[in-house]
Amino acid sequence: MNEFDLIAEIKARAPTGAGVVLGIDDDAAVLQPAPGTQLVATTDNLVAGRHFVDKGDNAATAEEIGHLALAVNLSDLAAMGATPRWCLLTLTLPEADSAWLREFLNGFLALAAEHHCALVGGNIARGPLNIGVTALGEVPAGKFATRSGARPGQRIVVTGTLGDAAAGLTLARPPGDPLRERLLQPVPRIAAGLELAEIADALIDISDGLLADLAHLIGELGAEIHCNQLPTSSALAEALPDDRERWLLQFAGGDYELLAVVANDAKLPAAVGGVELTEIGRVTDSGKIECLDAEGKVFETSESGWDHFV
Amino acid sequence: MNEFDLIAEIKARAPTGAGVVLGIDDDAAVLQPAPGTQLVATTDNLVAGRHFVDKGDNAATAEEIGHLALAVNLSDLAAMGATPRWCLLTLTLPEADSAWLREFLNGFLALAAEHHCALVGGNIARGPLNIGVTALGEVPAGKFATRSGARPGQRIVVTGTLGDAAAGLTLARPPGDPLRERLLQPVPRIAAGLELAEIADALIDISDGLLADLAHLIGELGAEIHCNQLPTSSALAEALPDDRERWLLQFAGGDYELLAVVANDAKLPAAVGGVELTEIGRVTDSGKIECLDAEGKVFETSESGWDHFV
Repeated sequence: MNEFDLIAEIKARAPTGAGVVLGIDDDAAVLQPAPGTQLVATTDNLVAGRHFVDKGDNAATAEEIGHLALAVNLSDLAAMGATPRWCLLTLTLPEADSAWLREFLNGFLALAAEHHCALVGGNIARGPLNIGVTALGEVPAGKFATRSGARPGQRIVVTGTLGDAAAGLTLARPPGDPLRERLLQPVPRIAAGLELAEIADALIDISDGLLADLAHLIGELGAEIHCNQLPTSSALAEALPDDRERWLLQFAGGDYELLAVVANDAKLPAAVGGVELTEIGRVTDSGKIECLDAEGKVFETSESGWDHFV
Repeated sequence: MNEFDLIAEIKARAPTGAGVVLGIDDDAAVLQPAPGTQLVATTDNLVAGRHFVDKGDNAATAEEIGHLALAVNLSDLAAMGATPRWCLLTLTLPEADSAWLREFLNGFLALAAEHHCALVGGNIARGPLNIGVTALGEVPAGKFATRSGARPGQRIVVTGTLGDAAAGLTLARPPGDPLRERLLQPVPRIAAGLELAEIADALIDISDGLLADLAHLIGELGAEIHCNQLPTSSALAEALPDDRERWLLQFAGGDYELLAVVANDAKLPAAVGGVELTEIGRVTDSGKIECLDAEGKVFETSESGWDHFV
């Protein structure tokens, strides 16, 4: 199997989509944005051994990697309140392994289909495993959410549950385990993002970690987080009954939930886009993030999120 | 220097541009396509040791890599007759080396500025050196060029000169040499692409090699190439006075010139977008590409272009 066979395989399996004037066939894709919209563009890549375990019993499967590579990009679109439209894929592969590619595409294209996100272009090269994705989405002009807009007194809310991905990683759960699924097959919160963009003053997705991403939202301001209000899955509560151990994982990222600040007097729905919405704290003017335990005492943590170069 | 310092460095140096509603600051960029246009999107990456020499005396400099990474993408936009608007950059770096990053940005951003192509987003990760770029351009709706449209009897034309990049690689020329410059700092033929899109029936850029990329244009048809008409720079003619040796390099790719087929009766300009346009042969119905020498005899070659997995 050579480069062109691999591309033919991808082309044969990538369904076209709305607004695709010209897809994988040419030097570049030609796309038709809908009138009255703005384009939302993001890119993110996965490096073997860095963003997923690539060796040993708990190595990510090709299908999981395919899902994850697209999911982390769609999550960025969700954080803007955008609807996915198109994506491009750059595969750097150590060898032309068609079985691996097929499995990878199973994961990638299933998620793409779910979100009507057409794969319209890409590139294949040989080298250490590295998967790059660019996702393009759309918003009605001006109707996007940003990271800025937090003010003291506002409420901090989060979708879904926190800590599952970090637990899946730390506890090295096998395929099929719900915690591992949260780590390797996160659900981009597209529908929730659309709803939150309407009510939130600031919005971000939690990729690096709750505290790290919250820091992006509050800037020079501060925040109070009530650890005992952090939304917790039953799988995580069972795996880690100790509050403090669990909280550390809940600060650690990889869940791709959405984190928002909303006005103090906003009416909060119990769920957005079919996923639970939980208030976990407040924006303050303290200049620091304080995590409080059940008694309201400050819970010290050195957790500051994921830095790719530490 | 950590991941966020690197991003801050890039952000500080990436000027905003037309149609950039929201740039590097958020989870994704928000871009305003011009009314009546279609979006043209392409992605391509460079792998160390594969797309450029990364070790030894002739290793590509960071500045050359920065230019090359963007140039190969802009060349794809040129091949569609598109005008560059925005780009996104994914850097996988073995270490957080700020001197390397600065040089890389010198090359990347100089070319971006020349084409008014705003850097609006990206990602940095740690791993074996791999640079991914997505370029977004624009065409007036329907006014893009494609690879299809070749018919027997049409003339085959090419911009600029051929073989310089392959000579720069084969002859391992040092920095400053014009052949090396063609290899590592190719000029995306944007203005030529705009003009060729008006007159060509099919258009492609020569990345893999003249014969390989011509094969994409002619499909099941054939072609006759007159080797003694291949446009040759004086630097190449001097380096390789032997015709046959030189022709082999001229088939070999990396020049990022544009290759087009035009109607037999089309009036051909001597130059497009300020670069010479040369007729090098004809489309035939023979089902194969025949390269003819000065006497009209078939010149046998096994050169079939660049396959990343051979």
